[in-house]
Amino acid sequence: MNYSFAPQTKTYQSSAVRDILKVTQQGHVISFAGGLPSEEIFPLEQVKIAYEKVFASGKSSLQYGLTEGFTPLREAIQTKMDRKGISSNPDNILITTGSQQVIDLFSRVMLSPGDVVLTEDPTYLSALQVFRSYGAQVVAVNSDDNGMDPEDLQAKIEILHPKFIYIIPTFSNPDGKVWSNERRQDLLSLCYKYNVLILEDDPYGDIQFHQEEEYHPIAAFDTHQSHVLYTSTFSKSVVPALRTGWVTGPIEVIKMMTQAKQMNDLHSSSIDQQALYYLLRDFNLDSHIDLLRSEYYKRMTTMRDCLSKVGSGLFTWKEPKGGMFLWVEGNEQLNTTILLGEAVEKGVAFVPGAPFYVNHPKHNTFRLNFSHSTPDTIKLGMDRLVEVLLKPQVV
Amino acid sequence: MNYSFAPQTKTYQSSAVRDILKVTQQGHVISFAGGLPSEEIFPLEQVKIAYEKVFASGKSSLQYGLTEGFTPLREAIQTKMDRKGISSNPDNILITTGSQQVIDLFSRVMLSPGDVVLTEDPTYLSALQVFRSYGAQVVAVNSDDNGMDPEDLQAKIEILHPKFIYIIPTFSNPDGKVWSNERRQDLLSLCYKYNVLILEDDPYGDIQFHQEEEYHPIAAFDTHQSHVLYTSTFSKSVVPALRTGWVTGPIEVIKMMTQAKQMNDLHSSSIDQQALYYLLRDFNLDSHIDLLRSEYYKRMTTMRDCLSKVGSGLFTWKEPKGGMFLWVEGNEQLNTTILLGEAVEKGVAFVPGAPFYVNHPKHNTFRLNFSHSTPDTIKLGMDRLVEVLLKPQVV
Repeated sequence: MNYSFAPQTKTYQSSAVRDILKVTQQGHVISFAGGLPSEEIFPLEQVKIAYEKVFASGKSSLQYGLTEGFTPLREAIQTKMDRKGISSNPDNILITTGSQQVIDLFSRVMLSPGDVVLTEDPTYLSALQVFRSYGAQVVAVNSDDNGMDPEDLQAKIEILHPKFIYIIPTFSNPDGKVWSNERRQDLLSLCYKYNVLILEDDPYGDIQFHQEEEYHPIAAFDTHQSHVLYTSTFSKSVVPALRTGWVTGPIEVIKMMTQAKQMNDLHSSSIDQQALYYLLRDFNLDSHIDLLRSEYYKRMTTMRDCLSKVGSGLFTWKEPKGGMFLWVEGNEQLNTTILLGEAVEKGVAFVPGAPFYVNHPKHNTFRLNFSHSTPDTIKLGMDRLVEVLLKPQVV
Repeated sequence: MNYSFAPQTKTYQSSAVRDILKVTQQGHVISFAGGLPSEEIFPLEQVKIAYEKVFASGKSSLQYGLTEGFTPLREAIQTKMDRKGISSNPDNILITTGSQQVIDLFSRVMLSPGDVVLTEDPTYLSALQVFRSYGAQVVAVNSDDNGMDPEDLQAKIEILHPKFIYIIPTFSNPDGKVWSNERRQDLLSLCYKYNVLILEDDPYGDIQFHQEEEYHPIAAFDTHQSHVLYTSTFSKSVVPALRTGWVTGPIEVIKMMTQAKQMNDLHSSSIDQQALYYLLRDFNLDSHIDLLRSEYYKRMTTMRDCLSKVGSGLFTWKEPKGGMFLWVEGNEQLNTTILLGEAVEKGVAFVPGAPFYVNHPKHNTFRLNFSHSTPDTIKLGMDRLVEVLLKPQVV
């Protein structure tokens, strides 16, 4: 039988990252590909205790829950948001299955075919896929190291009337960029002026290497919660298997997204939500995040030092100030998509940079994840990778 | 700020069932409203042990997983499907956040605005909402106690070229109906002839009161897995808080739905999936389901006997052969939506029947859930309900 799928499925493509993840799970490949956190640091014992508390609370813990999410968890998130300077309340916090679901639900309630979404370039490839699956036209705004260029942004807002602007302003995926506080405020001012919504995706904000620097979420400047949807997740700071993220923002938008979520899956796992509540209540997450920061910093510098040995001039990168990724650009002849097959054969994987670009892929870029592997594994994997990178390329 | 939502959000409406659930959670209302399973019967101790096994398996249990779902769980579901006569394999089984997500993902990959979906009438109201949210036109097929009328079905397929047919053939929500085996085969034959897909929703199939009767899933007749998407869930047979459902069917459709799920939420909670795997491996789910069946049968007969006391002629209902619901029709003057407010004041809740209808709501119908309350609570709640029902109505 020929299955007549809806036209929007023509935009679907399996995520390169996840396809590689599948391959590398099978063999002895050292993977710098997926955005995986370090397993060694997972607070397994504390997670286990948190689940024990759920079951000790009785059988009602296993019943259906609210679409909005477990109320005590939403209250705990409100406290977390307060500390970041974001004013929220449990009514405008929606718990989701990871922040991926926030990107999808927000797109679902906002986008119609032909609508424009403005983004950075490169940006999170799965977000690009979601926007396109709803028929949106994604347009990149010119950026430098400090964030979007306000002039280009204003011009594109005026001409294209975007439905919203999607950004990862703090330790971006894929390129680890951090926006300056000035550019954050510039963006918000323009969005106030032209009444445009912002989707601020902040999965990595907690993983900050230099404590003396201060970054404020854009949502913190949006004091009336009118223009910014802020989303984050516990996948990077606690464990990914929980699949628990959240979004806070304008109550009208959160309510609409809640209705969409009701149709989408009724609610996310409430056992996990309850466990996370106990974990946040009883476990010192701050000191756990401190541990993550120092360990990931060590791993990043290990990887950076391996790259430096290749010799300057061949590859360029910016040292990330946080997050989980090193973004590397090679000479113009390099095609990292072709290189990937060879690298996997040598026992190391990365993600080619091309799919992260909105329109004009730079085929000489690639993303390296430093959080998942121990420093020793990073050295071994980088030896393999450098060998592949330095081999003369047949273009 | 005025938020300019996508036009399809105009079809959104908060689910009546869940809104009532919220109200009734707050007070001392006896609720026959939601489709909640019995908490007393939840296998709390066994669930707890299953999670302990997850954490005992080590830190990798907390890492990101596959979009398709935890492979050993998909293998266990294959075995379960085999026992129902449905041939499947782990590659064409997708694990989801409840079967609600199956309805949503299938609609997402199949439906464009203007497409037709054929359904029973009344049918699961949240499915109607999903289909409409994708712009589909839902058309009801004439049915009797045995299922859809093949003549009307054929006529509507020929004229309307539906994208798919959605049915709950075994202990339907809301009316508890069971299709005859003949009608199941009639439906499949027509779908073969006209190349139409079927979404067979089977959340209640395991809760069968009379073991001597035999019902075969329609998917069991679809030996090449070409035309039927079969979905079920562990929410009713194990516990809802796990939010774990699945779908099996044509591999092309499952792959497309997997891509949609990747964009939607990457994957469902893998802690829950692993726990469910250990539960299915080590716990006697069959004898647990036997317990559910006999307890729910007792509860159903208690409720039925209370209804019978009202006096015949005022209300009509069919005794359900399984599932969780009694569907009741009153005299034509009755408006159960108006009645609900009064009932909640008296301390009892139900769901008005109107939202379950496709086009022509019967305002004199309502749905009673008998699984959630103990027999004593059912008696108390039915006393309250009967008082409200027998009060002369101001129309």
